[in-house]
Amino acid sequence: MTFNAPVGLIADTLNHIARIDDLAATGAFPNFDVDLVSPILDEANKLARDVLAPLNPIGHKSGARLTDAGVIAAPGFSEAYAQFREGGWMGLSFPEKFGGQGLPKPLALAVMEMMHASNMAFALCPLLTFGAIEAILEHGSDEQKQMYLPKLISGEWTGAMNLTEPQAGSDVGALKAKALPNSDGSYAISGQKIFISWGDHDMTDNIVQLVLARLPDAPQGSKGISLFVAPKYIVKPDGSLGERNTFRCIGLEHKMGIHASPTCVMEYSNAKGWLVGEPNKGLAAMFTMMNSARLNVGLEGVGLAEAALQAAVEFAHQRKQGQANGVEGPAPIIHHPDIQRSIASMAAATQAARSICYACGAAAELAKHATDPAVREAAKMREDFLTPLAKAWSTDRAVDVANFGVQIHGGLGFMGETAAAQFYLDARILPIYEGTNGIQAIDLVGRKLSMNNGAAAISLMDEIRASAREARETNDPRFVSIAERLEEAVGVFDQATDWIIAAMKSARESALYGATAYLKLAGDVAGGFYLTRSALELRHKGHGERAIALARFFAENSLAAAHGLMGPITMASRVGKDTALLASGNGE
Amino acid sequence: MTFNAPVGLIADTLNHIARIDDLAATGAFPNFDVDLVSPILDEANKLARDVLAPLNPIGHKSGARLTDAGVIAAPGFSEAYAQFREGGWMGLSFPEKFGGQGLPKPLALAVMEMMHASNMAFALCPLLTFGAIEAILEHGSDEQKQMYLPKLISGEWTGAMNLTEPQAGSDVGALKAKALPNSDGSYAISGQKIFISWGDHDMTDNIVQLVLARLPDAPQGSKGISLFVAPKYIVKPDGSLGERNTFRCIGLEHKMGIHASPTCVMEYSNAKGWLVGEPNKGLAAMFTMMNSARLNVGLEGVGLAEAALQAAVEFAHQRKQGQANGVEGPAPIIHHPDIQRSIASMAAATQAARSICYACGAAAELAKHATDPAVREAAKMREDFLTPLAKAWSTDRAVDVANFGVQIHGGLGFMGETAAAQFYLDARILPIYEGTNGIQAIDLVGRKLSMNNGAAAISLMDEIRASAREARETNDPRFVSIAERLEEAVGVFDQATDWIIAAMKSARESALYGATAYLKLAGDVAGGFYLTRSALELRHKGHGERAIALARFFAENSLAAAHGLMGPITMASRVGKDTALLASGNGE
Repeated sequence: MTFNAPVGLIADTLNHIARIDDLAATGAFPNFDVDLVSPILDEANKLARDVLAPLNPIGHKSGARLTDAGVIAAPGFSEAYAQFREGGWMGLSFPEKFGGQGLPKPLALAVMEMMHASNMAFALCPLLTFGAIEAILEHGSDEQKQMYLPKLISGEWTGAMNLTEPQAGSDVGALKAKALPNSDGSYAISGQKIFISWGDHDMTDNIVQLVLARLPDAPQGSKGISLFVAPKYIVKPDGSLGERNTFRCIGLEHKMGIHASPTCVMEYSNAKGWLVGEPNKGLAAMFTMMNSARLNVGLEGVGLAEAALQAAVEFAHQRKQGQANGVEGPAPIIHHPDIQRSIASMAAATQAARSICYACGAAAELAKHATDPAVREAAKMREDFLTPLAKAWSTDRAVDVANFGVQIHGGLGFMGETAAAQFYLDARILPIYEGTNGIQAIDLVGRKLSMNNGAAAISLMDEIRASAREARETNDPRFVSIAERLEEAVGVFDQATDWIIAAMKSARESALYGATAYLKLAGDVAGGFYLTRSALELRHKGHGERAIALARFFAENSLAAAHGLMGPITMASRVGKDTALLASGNGE
Repeated sequence: MTFNAPVGLIADTLNHIARIDDLAATGAFPNFDVDLVSPILDEANKLARDVLAPLNPIGHKSGARLTDAGVIAAPGFSEAYAQFREGGWMGLSFPEKFGGQGLPKPLALAVMEMMHASNMAFALCPLLTFGAIEAILEHGSDEQKQMYLPKLISGEWTGAMNLTEPQAGSDVGALKAKALPNSDGSYAISGQKIFISWGDHDMTDNIVQLVLARLPDAPQGSKGISLFVAPKYIVKPDGSLGERNTFRCIGLEHKMGIHASPTCVMEYSNAKGWLVGEPNKGLAAMFTMMNSARLNVGLEGVGLAEAALQAAVEFAHQRKQGQANGVEGPAPIIHHPDIQRSIASMAAATQAARSICYACGAAAELAKHATDPAVREAAKMREDFLTPLAKAWSTDRAVDVANFGVQIHGGLGFMGETAAAQFYLDARILPIYEGTNGIQAIDLVGRKLSMNNGAAAISLMDEIRASAREARETNDPRFVSIAERLEEAVGVFDQATDWIIAAMKSARESALYGATAYLKLAGDVAGGFYLTRSALELRHKGHGERAIALARFFAENSLAAAHGLMGPITMASRVGKDTALLASGNGE
């Protein structure tokens, strides 16, 4: 297949959903001009389409490999990385002070979406580097910032996040890696870390590990975790590289997908590291990396969904099977209603996910840079609420969309080397890493909703109802029907929100049973809202018909089904005991 | 993981859903006694649990391989096949006249479910042999029956189905393989067939190919297809094996899953074959194989779902992460509500799918053997209606259940060699082969529903409503709430059925857009019905509490969401044009 990023659609989403103009108006991005959007997107598309996409099947087939000298990236990846670095793509939204370009984050998200779409295994490397950069930016000392940030932001070095241990996955507080103080102010880190994406590779001279470990006498659990920075080669005061640090990759996982992304087992043996931030405050620093990573994983979902959609459209236009009205001889399967419905579902879900992720990224920027503190506060609340949706809803949709893609390809879709199969396999990690989607749902109902008694949901509902009114007032029957579906769905969301907030107080377990279904509903409603906004904004412009079609299809297919989620959300109050019985095993 | 078939649950399903007593009462199974059920299931479980399950990860890792001497099965598979053959499992439900045991089909389905659960790649070989046996039984000449059936039914030889060609997948009428008459009454078959499961292997002395090809001057399309039988080694009049036939496997596909099932590219070069049935009537014979295979593929879904469920339950009891009320130290994840809900969903979906498949098999037997012609006719209608549900609903649920299984395993689930990953990968073929699930949906609304103006759906609804009344009349509040959900869902199903039948007459394309959602609804309602029946039948017996829990969970989780499907079913009348626009590509 040939990948080509939907630059027009992405630009529309930046303009009308991320409202990149509003970000520019904060004055925080003096380098940014809205005229830069198109050239930047076009340039990124060239790298994605011409360099990364052709490497994607090669990476899938060959994978990364572990040698005595360390991990060797898949064929062509080092050269592609050099182009990525030279393009300055790593530093797009980071501060100029450290060599970045200081552009608004949604633009960087849009660029990364293209990289993920064309080659997710490759794009994971910058994704993790972003986490490392943000952790050092927010929690590092001035010296650490000077030492690491310019090289990370330029892409000369990459970063990785070392959190998970065999007994400490979702429960990061269970980790055991130890950090003993050395006499020179550094620490000696020992322990094993697993599932470390791009923990080692040969694409750059140095790799900067961010590592969670325990100080001697640290409290048990998550309150005794500290964050360390440990470069593969120790950086000398003059910035040149010194001795090799004493950690190494001792194994690569054999995974279902993302074969070209080396998933390392890392062994730390008195490796030299430096404390980042305060002792025992590593969890907060980890959440800095995590929150950035969660939105970026959502973007991976958007990218994969876009790629799967394009592959399906291409295949459905080429593959001929059966007859269709108005077509002589065997008809391309795109003429069959079930295929059309499948592709339209893919397109609507992909654009809804894209919108949620961009809106989340925009809220994150406004939360930092808006001049009005009330705007900052509201934006922070919106960012917090949208982050679990961006991560979980988008990645669940990515799996759905990739699944449709395989199905449209029929038997060919099951062949492990077709693009459709690769997307399906690559996609499956997304609902798992950076906090499983079940944990996102718990975060949504347990923290994001309970904060301020649901104010985050209420402010979103107010905006949605205003947009529904606006749609109704167009008097265009297409918009009126969108408004009806949106109003019904937001009504269900309102009811469900009340139920969850009440249950969190009186019967927390019941609320947690319904958390995943509530997150699905929240994502459906938010997705439908943003598609409606795009349709309203674009209705008299170039892509108007398409934007209206997306909003209508999503309204009739997804919003119309929203009321069906009320049962699953509130189910535990009725069948909690049955659930526990069934979960105990099949009774044989 | 350790697999152990749920023998008690399976026996309950045979007794109360397949109503195997009613089958025995037809007098068609003189060898059958209800006391045989348990010993047969126990014996089959030994083979599944002790022989086939341990080979499953080996088959996944090693796969079958192609050598100059033909296909070599995965390590241990030949020995396992010998045990399968010696156990007489191939012939369980075939006529005694040809060496079978003449037992009711649902019993054979239950046995095959265990084989699929323990090793789907292995069990595909008997699955395809069943198709070959049924085609020869129904369409072969007496001479062909004598020549092939005893050896196939004993398992001494296996069979394979050769339908697909590169340009002829779902549209089998597009096939091009040719059959030219030889002077001796046989035919010379030439052409290439793809996706031929177990088309070659080294587990038996001979392999009997059923091949679709065109006679010279055959009409175009599906009315010009004939069926041929072509053994790997020509069978001499005395039954011994003669010359090697001139077809061979020239390639094996690299697939996402079922690695131990060799998916062959078969090259026929003037291979010797004999016509089965009438010239140009191959399509009818193909449907004999297909209908049998469709139900059996549904059973593969049930088996895989059961295996994925067991693996998830085992893992969730062992894996410790986080805290839970009443548990000291790290708690097994089974204590977390989201994990419990996931496992309960898996259990309910698996048992609903099992029930639909067994009910379909029972209807097929009654349609043949009931003494009252009215019963036969009603049973045939039920079989026809349930077949697409058995195939599509069960396999969609298998993918869902395997997906839950991966998610529960977290990062480990993404590792290609864990059992959870294997189930997820193996499951993905099920919605594709033997007619994609989209085609099943078209079959359901296009043929099964339109026959007799929906009589098949109406008779099912009548039974469901009677069961809902029965549940309500127990005055047990648990049953009353099940009855409420069931009545609401059957009301939606009734409405949807009327809409589809009307649309098929006035706006066929609109009905076809909604076909997949309609099939989902039909399966949900049928599944909920059978779970309710089991709960009613078992409520005063040993597994009663569990049966009630399954029915309640399914009612509150799936039936309660049924009304949400009405929108997607009827959507095309509102957004058909939008769908076509979106399907045309992303407009860039």
